[in-house]
Amino acid sequence: MMKENGSTTYPFETIPISALSAVPGKEEPGAHIGEEITLCGSIHKIRRMSGFAFVILRTSRDLFQCVLSPEFCSVPTDGLKEEMCVRIRALVAKEARSRTGWELRLTAVEILSRPAMELPVVVNQKRMTASLETMLDHRPVALRNEKERAVFRLQHGLCRAFRAFLENQGFTEIHTPKLVSQGAEGGANIFRLDYFGKEAYLAQSPQFYKQMMTGVYERVFEIGPVFRAEKHDTARHLNEYTSVDFEMGYISGFEEICRMEAAMIRYALETLEEEYEKELALLSVKLPRVREIPSIRFHAAKELVAEHFGRPVCEKEDLEPEEEKLLSQLVWEETGSDFVFVTHYPSSKRPFYAMEDPAHPEVTLSFDLLFRGLEVTTGGQRIHDYAAQLAKMEQRGMDPSLFAGYLEMHRAGMPPHGGLGLGLERFTARLLELDNVRRACLFPRDIHRIMP
Amino acid sequence: MMKENGSTTYPFETIPISALSAVPGKEEPGAHIGEEITLCGSIHKIRRMSGFAFVILRTSRDLFQCVLSPEFCSVPTDGLKEEMCVRIRALVAKEARSRTGWELRLTAVEILSRPAMELPVVVNQKRMTASLETMLDHRPVALRNEKERAVFRLQHGLCRAFRAFLENQGFTEIHTPKLVSQGAEGGANIFRLDYFGKEAYLAQSPQFYKQMMTGVYERVFEIGPVFRAEKHDTARHLNEYTSVDFEMGYISGFEEICRMEAAMIRYALETLEEEYEKELALLSVKLPRVREIPSIRFHAAKELVAEHFGRPVCEKEDLEPEEEKLLSQLVWEETGSDFVFVTHYPSSKRPFYAMEDPAHPEVTLSFDLLFRGLEVTTGGQRIHDYAAQLAKMEQRGMDPSLFAGYLEMHRAGMPPHGGLGLGLERFTARLLELDNVRRACLFPRDIHRIMP
Repeated sequence: MMKENGSTTYPFETIPISALSAVPGKEEPGAHIGEEITLCGSIHKIRRMSGFAFVILRTSRDLFQCVLSPEFCSVPTDGLKEEMCVRIRALVAKEARSRTGWELRLTAVEILSRPAMELPVVVNQKRMTASLETMLDHRPVALRNEKERAVFRLQHGLCRAFRAFLENQGFTEIHTPKLVSQGAEGGANIFRLDYFGKEAYLAQSPQFYKQMMTGVYERVFEIGPVFRAEKHDTARHLNEYTSVDFEMGYISGFEEICRMEAAMIRYALETLEEEYEKELALLSVKLPRVREIPSIRFHAAKELVAEHFGRPVCEKEDLEPEEEKLLSQLVWEETGSDFVFVTHYPSSKRPFYAMEDPAHPEVTLSFDLLFRGLEVTTGGQRIHDYAAQLAKMEQRGMDPSLFAGYLEMHRAGMPPHGGLGLGLERFTARLLELDNVRRACLFPRDIHRIMP
Repeated sequence: MMKENGSTTYPFETIPISALSAVPGKEEPGAHIGEEITLCGSIHKIRRMSGFAFVILRTSRDLFQCVLSPEFCSVPTDGLKEEMCVRIRALVAKEARSRTGWELRLTAVEILSRPAMELPVVVNQKRMTASLETMLDHRPVALRNEKERAVFRLQHGLCRAFRAFLENQGFTEIHTPKLVSQGAEGGANIFRLDYFGKEAYLAQSPQFYKQMMTGVYERVFEIGPVFRAEKHDTARHLNEYTSVDFEMGYISGFEEICRMEAAMIRYALETLEEEYEKELALLSVKLPRVREIPSIRFHAAKELVAEHFGRPVCEKEDLEPEEEKLLSQLVWEETGSDFVFVTHYPSSKRPFYAMEDPAHPEVTLSFDLLFRGLEVTTGGQRIHDYAAQLAKMEQRGMDPSLFAGYLEMHRAGMPPHGGLGLGLERFTARLLELDNVRRACLFPRDIHRIMP
């Protein structure tokens, strides 16, 4: 490492930043007629015809049909296999018989990898016919189906849009711990673990932390995992899901949170309409229009459903899933809205931090949002005054000393505030009219499943 | 609910979307000279002068000094208290003696909430003097300090910019499960829990899932929590941290991943420079310039540090923290770069999925990124071929049947791929030259701490 003149040379090389490779998902062969282009992807399907073959290439976001003919390419059809990963060269040729007006004529195929089995599920048909269980058992493969993966492209679009909207509205993103020493809601529905000899829990929501942070930034949000040890085994429950949480200070009432949510959803649906045409068409999605969202008080909703559908009220303090469906149906028929806010839930069914209506302390300044028959959001105004919070905890027989860290924020002074949590998988499932929330989760966790 | 003519009326109200309240963090009183404005915030500090007082209002992103004088406002100074939350009205008046050229003369103060104690830490001085332990014990309060909260505004800026960059480069965001049945790296450093009678683990990284998803979308990313049960108690370890993960398919070599990371970091630093001037100035941050990032092979780096600093090599197969510091120092002196890639780590120290250099199977096609003396990223190319992966697992004495779900992706065919994980807190800490990674984590988790 010594030069002749005694000075040291160092074995540093440099990795240039400039030379990034082409961005996948933006290929437009139609803009290159008469030229040769390069594409990478998996061989999605091979259809052998007489004298030539159609080779469908699956790239990051598209399927491209290519013609493999001995006229243009020396690669034999039987040298190719579905799910090989390849880099192809193709001539973009005018072709009147094609829907697009052009076709891709393969001129070279470089095989980058070969599969080592027949796929356990068929992914190269338009729609997958495998059962939900089978699809979930073979999730990494099943997601290669174009409709399956479109679901999660749209989910990505939703997250992008939610974040962009919230950032424009002055919200700061936070990352709160998932390992906690107290559960926000408490109770049995919480996963426990040993944390270096202490008992710890997996956070059921970022509730306490997002509240604390409104004392710092006024408006905060987080999109992250939450954990519920519920033993429910239904089409709408997951034991780990992605929660879109926001919390805002200096509110004049919980209606401000509803307005913010409605505007956020409207913005997200507009984003999908503008930027995800391909995926929406593939899944035949009917995007709801969000203008004004109707709202109804909890007790009025109960009464209305009972009366309109002649349905006896069993559970007085909560909406049953069937009631949520019927209410949504009625709202749709009467107002044309896919969404409805149900407000003023009974205090008995809301957590200890929910603010009560000063005029009617038996109900809270809270709401759920129903979307096409399913609750997708719970939110409300929180108690910000220390004495009020302490009184409510004592009234519920809770020990405030167990919540010292949480209560320190109240003692230090907090703005009036509130917020909500939206279940990303539930929202996606209702938007795409999927019959099971598991279909809107990449790798769902339920009471029976923790693999793959 | 029946009208006189027998038709039903429904008790729906509507919550209008149009009327969102003003976006906090964008107040510019200077644009309203001669007008009265409204601001919400906490009373950060009161300085009583003779005949009047300065009241410093802490809004979501700023501190505004207001003048409280009986000449303009009937509120008595002693009616106000630090950490009250208030809504104020103020006249923006020209004032030559002010640095800004204007001052805020309070005309009305509405008290929205009152604190119930003296703060346990002083937050309204420029710099906090409390010890790190005390600050962390009272985190929800300590974060109200303007410098403390600026740290996490910048962290928010980094995340926004990382995402924006990756989305522009064709990456799809994914949400992978944190409850898993296998640990990516395995070993003792993993949290265990009971999952409905089965043993489950907290994910140490989204490694397996992001790899699977390159077979679906080619390029994917996730910014989310990861969990390490390491018993380290150092200034650079956390037991839960936020990992910025990306993974990309159809790469020609691991250098492509390095290039992508360098470009991502450059983009993020440019974003901070353009949009976070206030926070950068407050924290006196020197943003590094990222042009070309030097790189050096692991073995050459070991040799260089040993020779240059006359330091005996103890651990042959890994870089010691001290060596990382010395190497970074040398790189800085020789090239002016705050970053350096160390490449080709020994196979023995890399996981079973790391691809080996075909010419030198004792080293892997992998890298770490050092930033101002600290490892902030680990990445590399992965094995994509089923037979090769199987052979490596068997060579390591691993039981492939325990990884059936993971290996299914290899069997189904995978593109050549690789990726990396960047520790968000470590990156933030080095960027802001904080002496402990805990200062770059809102609510840090370590071997002694799981509260608040």
